Amino acid sequence: MAAADAKPGQDLPFDAHHLDRLMDEAGLDVLVVTSKHNVQYLLGGYKFFFFESMDAIGTSRYLPVLIYRKGRPDQAADVGCFMESFEKELGRFWMSSLSLGATGSAPAMREAAAHIKALGSGIRRVGVESSFLPADAERVLRAELANVDIADAMLPLERLRARKSPEEIADLREASERVVASMMEALKAATPGTTKHEVVETLRRAEVNRGLVFDYCLITAGTSLNRAPSEQRLQAGDIMSIDSGGNYKGYIGDLCRMGILGEPDAELQDLLGFIEHVQQETRKPVKAGARGGEIIDLGERLVAQSPHAAYTHYMAHGMGLVSHEAPRLGTYKSLSYEGDDASRPLEAGMVISIETTMAHPKRGFVKLEDTVLVTDSGYEALGDSGRGWNRAGG
Amino acid sequence: MAAADAKPGQDLPFDAHHLDRLMDEAGLDVLVVTSKHNVQYLLGGYKFFFFESMDAIGTSRYLPVLIYRKGRPDQAADVGCFMESFEKELGRFWMSSLSLGATGSAPAMREAAAHIKALGSGIRRVGVESSFLPADAERVLRAELANVDIADAMLPLERLRARKSPEEIADLREASERVVASMMEALKAATPGTTKHEVVETLRRAEVNRGLVFDYCLITAGTSLNRAPSEQRLQAGDIMSIDSGGNYKGYIGDLCRMGILGEPDAELQDLLGFIEHVQQETRKPVKAGARGGEIIDLGERLVAQSPHAAYTHYMAHGMGLVSHEAPRLGTYKSLSYEGDDASRPLEAGMVISIETTMAHPKRGFVKLEDTVLVTDSGYEALGDSGRGWNRAGG
Repeated sequence: MAAADAKPGQDLPFDAHHLDRLMDEAGLDVLVVTSKHNVQYLLGGYKFFFFESMDAIGTSRYLPVLIYRKGRPDQAADVGCFMESFEKELGRFWMSSLSLGATGSAPAMREAAAHIKALGSGIRRVGVESSFLPADAERVLRAELANVDIADAMLPLERLRARKSPEEIADLREASERVVASMMEALKAATPGTTKHEVVETLRRAEVNRGLVFDYCLITAGTSLNRAPSEQRLQAGDIMSIDSGGNYKGYIGDLCRMGILGEPDAELQDLLGFIEHVQQETRKPVKAGARGGEIIDLGERLVAQSPHAAYTHYMAHGMGLVSHEAPRLGTYKSLSYEGDDASRPLEAGMVISIETTMAHPKRGFVKLEDTVLVTDSGYEALGDSGRGWNRAGG
Repeated sequence: MAAADAKPGQDLPFDAHHLDRLMDEAGLDVLVVTSKHNVQYLLGGYKFFFFESMDAIGTSRYLPVLIYRKGRPDQAADVGCFMESFEKELGRFWMSSLSLGATGSAPAMREAAAHIKALGSGIRRVGVESSFLPADAERVLRAELANVDIADAMLPLERLRARKSPEEIADLREASERVVASMMEALKAATPGTTKHEVVETLRRAEVNRGLVFDYCLITAGTSLNRAPSEQRLQAGDIMSIDSGGNYKGYIGDLCRMGILGEPDAELQDLLGFIEHVQQETRKPVKAGARGGEIIDLGERLVAQSPHAAYTHYMAHGMGLVSHEAPRLGTYKSLSYEGDDASRPLEAGMVISIETTMAHPKRGFVKLEDTVLVTDSGYEALGDSGRGWNRAGG
């Protein structure tokens, strides 16, 4: 698409009508988008490679700023750094208005504010991402747009991303399958004497060698409930939980699988069997149109009615470019969830992570986490293999 | 070190007396540190693994907040997320005051502000990192500390990091050597028909398989001056520049090396020879006590006096946890350099990246970038191999 041809209603890489509706509901005339994930989303997958893993440069930072005016994609603009001119040459931007000269958060926002001012009157309320807008950049924006209200736009932007496109679903499927395959590789390589750090390093390489970006790994071994990588050495008979996030083109695969250095006894079989039961039962209500909260209600009921209630927890949450995002099916104060999608219907294309977590006081940490896609007829699980006791060490 | 024993003058993982002096010069009573690199530095290398590659969670983000009061490390505190209790168990924090319950930038800053208020009177000026302090968190800080001045502390914190410890130098050496070895591997694997994307993916895996975190790769091929990874295919005879950053424990290796699919002709030998000459000559003034600006003065003079002045550029800058940091030897407006170390003496332990960049209008992009450690007797180059025309494809 030639950027100069951008017109209202054109073929943008996101659902502009949906975004306009969400902005309307929030009373926003213009969005000033500064988080990496939302800039990537609105640019159709593009993120500037140079600052993909870091931000800091000089005594400031790289700050991409994307400006979108409701109903006027032809007036959109992107502010980036001088090295992004290489990407412009390659046609990676859909908007014609680009300012690729500023590095540093305040200078970048000065460019963005100048663009908004040039749009003329009629702009009363600008939506920003307060958690991803540096204080110095906000100061510039407020000073330059003195007569404009500034409001938070995190919720409408999250809502826009809740229903995934076929391309996004394909990326999430790749991410999930590759994360699980990497876990199986890391478990196979683990033997008595291997440290948790070494298991995680093997996993990291396995994910990267499958084309993923490694995000993190929470890991337990033996009866310990400590999930941080450490110098703890595996011993014969130890169980292991491996909960890892790796992303493919920004889309996160986040699953948990179990391993054991030996053979599980009857109690361990029962414990993982119970978790598997909860994970399978709570998929069943998943379907477009079903009430979102039904999943968690059922999961919590199954846990509460079990003998494991005191040390087991059920959780479900949307995922995509962000590891916890809409639909928000429960209230997690610790994760800054301010809204609540529990009473809304699920929609086809939503992707949900479901997790049953057992911190068993004697046997250790036992958990499964799965990724479930909502479809019109029900659900589909992504990366759904390796769900039992995986034998480590060979 | 038992955290509860923290006392003034204790063995902290950074030079507390230096920091106190810098805070004194800047008139700061308390630091509120929120950038990943400065939190890592003040915590002695620790950064929370779960959010190492991403920040976003829910509709907010992870925000680590480290509080340091001048001359009172015993009153320091760190605010993190609930999963960091695993790291606390492992003894990773040197301060005794930890608040590991809040996720989200505003809740985290509420905890930080409460800690500062509890320190009592005498706090008049708090230093923050305005480019790394989210707007919503700054709002909380200003509201909670209504009678306190808030000033920027990026420069004193950068200054604190300018002179590297032996451990940091060892990490920078590892990073540099491994980046160059990875480049040689990626060049060997490149043949006619390979795309730039494929070369970068090979390099990414090579860096990760050497224990690095891959940051980025700028790459050119043939006579093109476009440095973004793309679907451009290599052809027989093409030259290639590979400029990549990869980090080891956060410390960045950032070097540029040249490759060729064939044999360099006399002109190519001359061009790289000239660049090599500038790179070698500009190391010679490097020594503790020398004027920092001498390096760039010499580099610019050598370029200006050459037949390549019109398309060649010389640059030198400090590096470490941040790819461009103190000492700041030139003025780079595009990189938000507001200070100037050109007139100050170099200090042993400073690490400088020197770059000679030629955008040749006919032959393509030719560049070397090296990493030079300042010592008492002169300099030492880290990762100094592979400086000629490296034959690709085998």
